[in-house]
Amino acid sequence: MSFDPGSGNIAVNDPLRDEIAAAVDAVRDTTPLAQSLTNFVTINFVANAQLAVGGTAAMHYSGEEAGALDSAGASKATYINMGTLLAEFRDEYPAAARDAVERRLPWVLDPVGAGAGKLRGDILRAFRETPPTIIRCNASEAIALAGIWGLDGADSKSRAGVEAHDEIEAAIPAAHALARFIGGVVSVSGAVDLVTDGERDFRLPGGSVWMTKITGAGCSLGGVTATYACVARPLVAALAAALHYNRAADAAERVAEGPGSFQTAFLDALWNTTADEIAQSPIYA
Amino acid sequence: MSFDPGSGNIAVNDPLRDEIAAAVDAVRDTTPLAQSLTNFVTINFVANAQLAVGGTAAMHYSGEEAGALDSAGASKATYINMGTLLAEFRDEYPAAARDAVERRLPWVLDPVGAGAGKLRGDILRAFRETPPTIIRCNASEAIALAGIWGLDGADSKSRAGVEAHDEIEAAIPAAHALARFIGGVVSVSGAVDLVTDGERDFRLPGGSVWMTKITGAGCSLGGVTATYACVARPLVAALAAALHYNRAADAAERVAEGPGSFQTAFLDALWNTTADEIAQSPIYA
Amino acid sequence: MSFDPGSGNIAVNDPLRDEIAAAVDAVRDTTPLAQSLTNFVTINFVANAQLAVGGTAAMHYSGEEAGALDSAGASKATYINMGTLLAEFRDEYPAAARDAVERRLPWVLDPVGAGAGKLRGDILRAFRETPPTIIRCNASEAIALAGIWGLDGADSKSRAGVEAHDEIEAAIPAAHALARFIGGVVSVSGAVDLVTDGERDFRLPGGSVWMTKITGAGCSLGGVTATYACVARPLVAALAAALHYNRAADAAERVAEGPGSFQTAFLDALWNTTADEIAQSPIYA
Repeated sequence: MSFDPGSGNIAVNDPLRDEIAAAVDAVRDTTPLAQSLTNFVTINFVANAQLAVGGTAAMHYSGEEAGALDSAGASKATYINMGTLLAEFRDEYPAAARDAVERRLPWVLDPVGAGAGKLRGDILRAFRETPPTIIRCNASEAIALAGIWGLDGADSKSRAGVEAHDEIEAAIPAAHALARFIGGVVSVSGAVDLVTDGERDFRLPGGSVWMTKITGAGCSLGGVTATYACVARPLVAALAAALHYNRAADAAERVAEGPGSFQTAFLDALWNTTADEIAQSPIYA
Repeated sequence: MSFDPGSGNIAVNDPLRDEIAAAVDAVRDTTPLAQSLTNFVTINFVANAQLAVGGTAAMHYSGEEAGALDSAGASKATYINMGTLLAEFRDEYPAAARDAVERRLPWVLDPVGAGAGKLRGDILRAFRETPPTIIRCNASEAIALAGIWGLDGADSKSRAGVEAHDEIEAAIPAAHALARFIGGVVSVSGAVDLVTDGERDFRLPGGSVWMTKITGAGCSLGGVTATYACVARPLVAALAAALHYNRAADAAERVAEGPGSFQTAFLDALWNTTADEIAQSPIYA
Repeated sequence: MSFDPGSGNIAVNDPLRDEIAAAVDAVRDTTPLAQSLTNFVTINFVANAQLAVGGTAAMHYSGEEAGALDSAGASKATYINMGTLLAEFRDEYPAAARDAVERRLPWVLDPVGAGAGKLRGDILRAFRETPPTIIRCNASEAIALAGIWGLDGADSKSRAGVEAHDEIEAAIPAAHALARFIGGVVSVSGAVDLVTDGERDFRLPGGSVWMTKITGAGCSLGGVTATYACVARPLVAALAAALHYNRAADAAERVAEGPGSFQTAFLDALWNTTADEIAQSPIYA
């Protein structure tokens, strides 16, 4: 594993573990709605993953609908994913982000493909004015987004990111800069996931290589992170979502015979994994 | 169960059961095409469900294409689902509905999220001029749509509906008003489904709670209702589709280990459930 | 089978088989990216199929993004599928095709529904100026596209094609005319697939009728053909993709209990089928 062997697993009775377990239970008990503006490739998987962890899903492409769901108190968090953009998203996505920020509701950004294309760049630049609460991304996207926002860490070797090519460690300066800028949390997915609030780094080993052989593992983790943000503070939401994913992936890998059966087993495992299994995962800090 | 215990299961040899069985066989024998204009979240599941009951699927977002498929005799019914609207659907969806009505072809409306958003409201209001043959919805959507069209039953407590929160019974006045206004059938999904032509109410128990833990159960039922509307009168189409769904859900629940395996088993069961199993379902009237 | 019994299976040691096996290995070894502009119905299945054969997937709807991925060397081939068109695709799709041609990168066209709708006709007509390297279609679409481009073979009985109604044999003149016009390869899917470069015809028996009972078998074959076009010449790419599909379908059919489990097993089988199984398939020429 690529993380500092000097760091250690947090204690079994660390209060953070209680907060994580409480978040898992709260989602299952209250079925909160996190609304999503997300790409067409994996929109079905995002919705099914949110349902499988116990939440509720509503998808649309409208700033006005975002405001309606926010103001009605129906949606407790917003998820915006930057894949498969259409021209009209140029105004709609920033409007949805603005509405969340004005109402002090958490919102989660997945900057899919950051660095590729003018429309994507324009929308990501607009988000600088109404920054997300949590960023869920891969290493290359963290570096690219730091560059778009003019933050530190952008001078790492970056590339338009649709896959987790760069090592997590190379993205740490960018992740720190992003977390501090948004005053929230950055969750970088990789062989060992990194969750940071800019001060403290948490590394989460485990998960499955099958996650890179199905489409939507990262996108749906973003959606589930928004589901958890309905019931927990950003750091706990990001940790609970990433750990829930890793434990479900472990379970699915044990029975998968290929990427098709892995995806089916993964959704089953999101439903069946216990709060205790999630909260007692290895968490290196 | 929430329906009047005084109502009873219709007779085993009720002619309606023969009509339902004949519809199931006709779809499997003739693979009819019902075209769909439907949301991006569940569009794949709608198409796969239509294929799994024996029909054919063609999806698009164009009033002109709807007319082309209608005029060629290729499509025998149209399904319009109001999820994930884009700006251009403002004209395209009403045009597709108008084409169906002008050619006296049945069309099925799923008013997903009725009550939320101006664009959705505008399109639903436009449909008042070319009303659907069948409305497939949940309770809160029936109430909201009755309100948009200025019909009775809209004074029940309504809310923007993406889930079946309201009780079916509270939606009965709205369902009756809608059915009478369109001169067709309203199919309200819930723990016990309600199908009504405004005169006679049919209640269909069974199905599975898993249906609320996957995305697209309702959307795809709308698409399958359109498939059945290709070969049967509206009341029979709505009953056959809802009963086919309930029996397939029962079968899938018996083998499911979570929402992933439930969805797989449900598509298998749509294919394997017999016409007799569907037609001999409990039907309270 | 409908093909000339006088034609014979090519030799076990035909060099073409070595090229096919090498293509299968090259995709698995190098995980090449073929970018896609493809319909909303089956976009998830296209991406998952590309991943399951060993490739990488990136989906969008932008000529500018196509150029960015091409110029960066990230994408080695482009896939354009004509289902579920939106108005803005009128300019974006031809721009993506033009970029591929200008950079001498292969691109694969799936002319879904050729013959239906003015927008589709306009875009397909535009492609005549920057023709694809490979066309993957069904028989009726081959005939319709030959008509749109004013080529021979268009006088066969044609119909707007969303399903493989026409016999492959009726489409042979159109397939030959298309292959010669583009200077590439046409892959016509059916009970027995036909792959032709306009000079030599290859017929590929096998596969499964379940492929017609799930949505996206053809669309995803188009995407996988683009994946193979990243690493092999057009004829080998079209053959490798179609044979990979037929062998995976054979394997999935052996365990499927319906269309749901077939799709799961099919994705597993795409991953697990060996290069040798694919390359030693029956190939009649």
